[in-house]
Amino acid sequence: MKKTKAAIVGASGYSGQELIRLLVRHPHVEITQFTSRQYAGKAVAEVFPRFRGQVDATFTEPDASRIDADAVFLALPHGVAAEFAPPLLQKGIKVLDLSADFRLKSASVYKEFYEHEHPAPHLLKQSVYGLPEIHREQIRSAKLVACPGCYPTSIILGIAPALKTGLVKSDGIIATSLSGVSGAGRKVADEFLFTECNESARAYSVPKHRHLGEIEQEVSSLAGTNVIITFTPHLIPLNRGIVSTIYLSLAKKAEDALAMYRDFYKGETFVRVTPSLPDTKNVEATNFCDISVRVDPRTNRLIVVSAIDNLTKGAAGQAVQCLNLVCGYDEATGLL
Amino acid sequence: MKKTKAAIVGASGYSGQELIRLLVRHPHVEITQFTSRQYAGKAVAEVFPRFRGQVDATFTEPDASRIDADAVFLALPHGVAAEFAPPLLQKGIKVLDLSADFRLKSASVYKEFYEHEHPAPHLLKQSVYGLPEIHREQIRSAKLVACPGCYPTSIILGIAPALKTGLVKSDGIIATSLSGVSGAGRKVADEFLFTECNESARAYSVPKHRHLGEIEQEVSSLAGTNVIITFTPHLIPLNRGIVSTIYLSLAKKAEDALAMYRDFYKGETFVRVTPSLPDTKNVEATNFCDISVRVDPRTNRLIVVSAIDNLTKGAAGQAVQCLNLVCGYDEATGLL
Amino acid sequence: MKKTKAAIVGASGYSGQELIRLLVRHPHVEITQFTSRQYAGKAVAEVFPRFRGQVDATFTEPDASRIDADAVFLALPHGVAAEFAPPLLQKGIKVLDLSADFRLKSASVYKEFYEHEHPAPHLLKQSVYGLPEIHREQIRSAKLVACPGCYPTSIILGIAPALKTGLVKSDGIIATSLSGVSGAGRKVADEFLFTECNESARAYSVPKHRHLGEIEQEVSSLAGTNVIITFTPHLIPLNRGIVSTIYLSLAKKAEDALAMYRDFYKGETFVRVTPSLPDTKNVEATNFCDISVRVDPRTNRLIVVSAIDNLTKGAAGQAVQCLNLVCGYDEATGLL
Amino acid sequence: MKKTKAAIVGASGYSGQELIRLLVRHPHVEITQFTSRQYAGKAVAEVFPRFRGQVDATFTEPDASRIDADAVFLALPHGVAAEFAPPLLQKGIKVLDLSADFRLKSASVYKEFYEHEHPAPHLLKQSVYGLPEIHREQIRSAKLVACPGCYPTSIILGIAPALKTGLVKSDGIIATSLSGVSGAGRKVADEFLFTECNESARAYSVPKHRHLGEIEQEVSSLAGTNVIITFTPHLIPLNRGIVSTIYLSLAKKAEDALAMYRDFYKGETFVRVTPSLPDTKNVEATNFCDISVRVDPRTNRLIVVSAIDNLTKGAAGQAVQCLNLVCGYDEATGLL
Repeated sequence: MKKTKAAIVGASGYSGQELIRLLVRHPHVEITQFTSRQYAGKAVAEVFPRFRGQVDATFTEPDASRIDADAVFLALPHGVAAEFAPPLLQKGIKVLDLSADFRLKSASVYKEFYEHEHPAPHLLKQSVYGLPEIHREQIRSAKLVACPGCYPTSIILGIAPALKTGLVKSDGIIATSLSGVSGAGRKVADEFLFTECNESARAYSVPKHRHLGEIEQEVSSLAGTNVIITFTPHLIPLNRGIVSTIYLSLAKKAEDALAMYRDFYKGETFVRVTPSLPDTKNVEATNFCDISVRVDPRTNRLIVVSAIDNLTKGAAGQAVQCLNLVCGYDEATGLL
Repeated sequence: MKKTKAAIVGASGYSGQELIRLLVRHPHVEITQFTSRQYAGKAVAEVFPRFRGQVDATFTEPDASRIDADAVFLALPHGVAAEFAPPLLQKGIKVLDLSADFRLKSASVYKEFYEHEHPAPHLLKQSVYGLPEIHREQIRSAKLVACPGCYPTSIILGIAPALKTGLVKSDGIIATSLSGVSGAGRKVADEFLFTECNESARAYSVPKHRHLGEIEQEVSSLAGTNVIITFTPHLIPLNRGIVSTIYLSLAKKAEDALAMYRDFYKGETFVRVTPSLPDTKNVEATNFCDISVRVDPRTNRLIVVSAIDNLTKGAAGQAVQCLNLVCGYDEATGLL
Repeated sequence: MKKTKAAIVGASGYSGQELIRLLVRHPHVEITQFTSRQYAGKAVAEVFPRFRGQVDATFTEPDASRIDADAVFLALPHGVAAEFAPPLLQKGIKVLDLSADFRLKSASVYKEFYEHEHPAPHLLKQSVYGLPEIHREQIRSAKLVACPGCYPTSIILGIAPALKTGLVKSDGIIATSLSGVSGAGRKVADEFLFTECNESARAYSVPKHRHLGEIEQEVSSLAGTNVIITFTPHLIPLNRGIVSTIYLSLAKKAEDALAMYRDFYKGETFVRVTPSLPDTKNVEATNFCDISVRVDPRTNRLIVVSAIDNLTKGAAGQAVQCLNLVCGYDEATGLL
Repeated sequence: MKKTKAAIVGASGYSGQELIRLLVRHPHVEITQFTSRQYAGKAVAEVFPRFRGQVDATFTEPDASRIDADAVFLALPHGVAAEFAPPLLQKGIKVLDLSADFRLKSASVYKEFYEHEHPAPHLLKQSVYGLPEIHREQIRSAKLVACPGCYPTSIILGIAPALKTGLVKSDGIIATSLSGVSGAGRKVADEFLFTECNESARAYSVPKHRHLGEIEQEVSSLAGTNVIITFTPHLIPLNRGIVSTIYLSLAKKAEDALAMYRDFYKGETFVRVTPSLPDTKNVEATNFCDISVRVDPRTNRLIVVSAIDNLTKGAAGQAVQCLNLVCGYDEATGLL
């Protein structure tokens, strides 16, 4: 079978490295380009010795006009992807964007959360939100897939069954997330130094983290009504992993919420509904999203806890899952 | 000045060790006994080399009849303290209990949360909840101080100003807490092994952690009405520290919530109301509770974030603060 | 192709879990039994939720008479493997032992280091030391493979090129190793609690760690003379990984030690000789051993630094590599 | 008693912060200035919220001409201190330098290790190496104290007793050190990001770390002969702490090496000779240096293991200990 030629644009960040790790094992993909502004000209395995013996390639300058690929993964900072995608799409290349640039359907919501005009609003309608468990069919035929971030993935997958089945109300939703430090990307800033993060736990971006926009968009779509959510991210001393704890108000008696969640995700390879509460270590370096639920009869709430690896199901793994859909491969190829 | 003779019963757990660390520096306290069932007969500095050169004493068997002290710190497991306290109180010794045994006023609430009858219900009325910022005057004259645990301290101090001033409603309160592993005590169980906790984040005891009883008791008292709370603790890979993020519904317009919090805690040495969001590393090995607040106008909520060191303000430091009140010393003695 | 039926005896320890992780992906292996005294009767995926969706099996009691397999991995504590192996070997089952029981050729050296008589000395001659880079051909035809431990693997592979080519002297060798906590196994003891290991670094078993015996045996064999080594292991707060720094006295001028090392390991899939100094994070969850060297002209020493993942190349990965040799598969099958 | 006025120049690095932590508790010191180029004009407690409620001061620009103090702590990068010290010394201000600038007696050794000419060679003779356990009397009368770094402190204190008493030979000394990440200072570089240091262990600066020069200078002085040492530092995922393991060749029979070490450090407050092997956690945030020894009869070596907190006994604590000597205070003032 002819392999899909894929380029990784922004291959030196953490999502980019995770893409490399996954794609070198993917039986139907050949990586044709690794771009990195910072490391152009250097061997991938020299910059990241973990790939020694596995990747024999050199980083090149990111340049859309020189991309020769069937599909391109954009692991670029916010704002840069929006400039990179249009020329690729024009050439008929499939784009899997890991940034936040094409996740919002509404240019005005984009402006509210990102505080500037969207640079390519005409593409917002065309892009598909790359959460396969929710938008599988649209992803199959998409040209531009906007892969969701780590917080949205863990929260949307946690809320979907309860909200879609009417088990819970759509108002008063609160989500608390705990994220490992790789979630911040490979950003060289003093707040992300080892000594500042180790033995540290802190909330940040309260009350309006940028990812809240896409969370509300997707949850509103599931609910069929406009939903406003309270969301508080926390930074904790893990390399990888996110736990989200979500508080929902029961709309009716929850007979067996766990069975209902199991039923909702029946047939899904990457969502595991578990009786025990999820732990980031159980999903580390995997594409699984573990979910469990508890009913609190004292407050009439449903408490949902989900865990993912922010770099895999929360970024690169999800993008590969989307690529598999776009290319017509088995969805789990290269991911188990 | 004659020193207060203090005994530490259960000196080999983490709270016990933190009591040793604090009391060896306390100018008005002399530690007369260090008990430990496990290490009786061994030198304290041999078992815990960190105290070498600072503590020249030997662990003894815990035996209430042999305690010779003005005040006794009970750093014992739940249930054991309730048996240890009565004979000490009868001898006129002041008791500072770090366990949960005497924190609840109601024997039936105790039974609800701990699932057995309280062994000494007659003492529940006598005991004072040892949170100085809320019960200072009662602590001064108490014979039995039930020092609150780490989760309750961080949550009650976080809620008190908003609830007491009527800024927020008393219903719908949700608290999420993140705790370092020392919060579990020095319990030798596989779930607390390094390899099981490092690179791990997980919720537990959902929806009804034992400490919820005392949180609701104190918050109800502040509100003047019965309050039911949703509380989710999480275990994260820190040695020490708790962050609690609390969601409250605004009852009125919050003009300047931070200033109101500052005003509420004016004069308090150990509560620091800060514009920046708290971080456990800023309170590590201190008796401070850092608190900040944010208003979310989109959901009309007040979000309170507090941080303490679970072994200091959440256990041993608080007990020493209470001792200072009981003995008439400056409240901060030995704690700055 | 007919799959090799493999049983994992002692599947609930860390090496056992790593064997599961690797073997479920191995294209030519079918795991027929997972034994665990502690968890017999429980589902593997229930005890270890990370295997949910991947392993649909139940732990059974370890019982040699009931093993139905072509090959058995023994991931048992020291001393237990020696009793388990003989009946399996008699049934013609290939045994891959991850314990230290069959690594030493000499029963008297065994007694010196383990302080009791060897329980099955007749098997010591038959067993092959399972380090493929050194004993590949013997492993291919072995019935009993004694897979080396994590410290020996990192040290022997680090020393071999220099010693075998006569670049360094065989006396005065010193090895310092730093190990992650999983190296201690899943042993529930207070010294391995998170709170005791995090923010802790310490040497232990100085001067005579049990693994020194096998290190000296193999290094002596490489040198062709009896070699005595100084070895100091340290415990550091990592989950996985070992770094060994080895000091060797140059016997002659080192023209290009790195090139010589590269040449020695030419064609080896799992040894990567790198110009930059190894880092445990680059070999995490891989079967690679990274090695680099530096010449110190001021002291006329060669300093070798090697890094492996103690659970992969230092335990389960190495055992799978040996299985591949024993079964005639490509040596890297299931390991890249 | 009139307090000593002290300025901290470079107060925003990790050594600077540790100086603040220690000096705010020092009964005889008043901090008159906190300089920081980066944060000049900002409140100390705003930049470092851990000092909230304890420090009510503002960072100022470092400017030697505006320093008004009896003593100045220089916590500056290498090379900058050498320019800052001369004008202060001319004004008669005592200088406690935490950098490496004045530690070497020889300008040519300085050039060998730092690869440029020393900017103020005339001061090298005047400066005193600030290791009180070795140079106590000279420090008392010093005007310029060059406080040793963290690696040298742990290694020199570990070697001194054995070498000075002739128990070991002066040749063939090897020292391996493991350091927490704060040892690198608050340097914003990608190699020190949390995600690059957590789950990472690596050797670096092999074979010629800059601190080797001062180690050899001091060890040579103890031995009375020129000593060349092999030294390998490693970076491990701790915030604070160094363990050094030192290999020495016995010159004679070691009857009771531990007793001999105890005797050597008799009366020293901050050196604890312990039967158990040192652990960084036992010295965390203290000025202690824990040392233990083992004899290896198989190789005729003495193995010394020492542990310090790199920011306290390895930097700020040692500097305060020196200040106490310079000012005639009890040496342990403010440090227990």
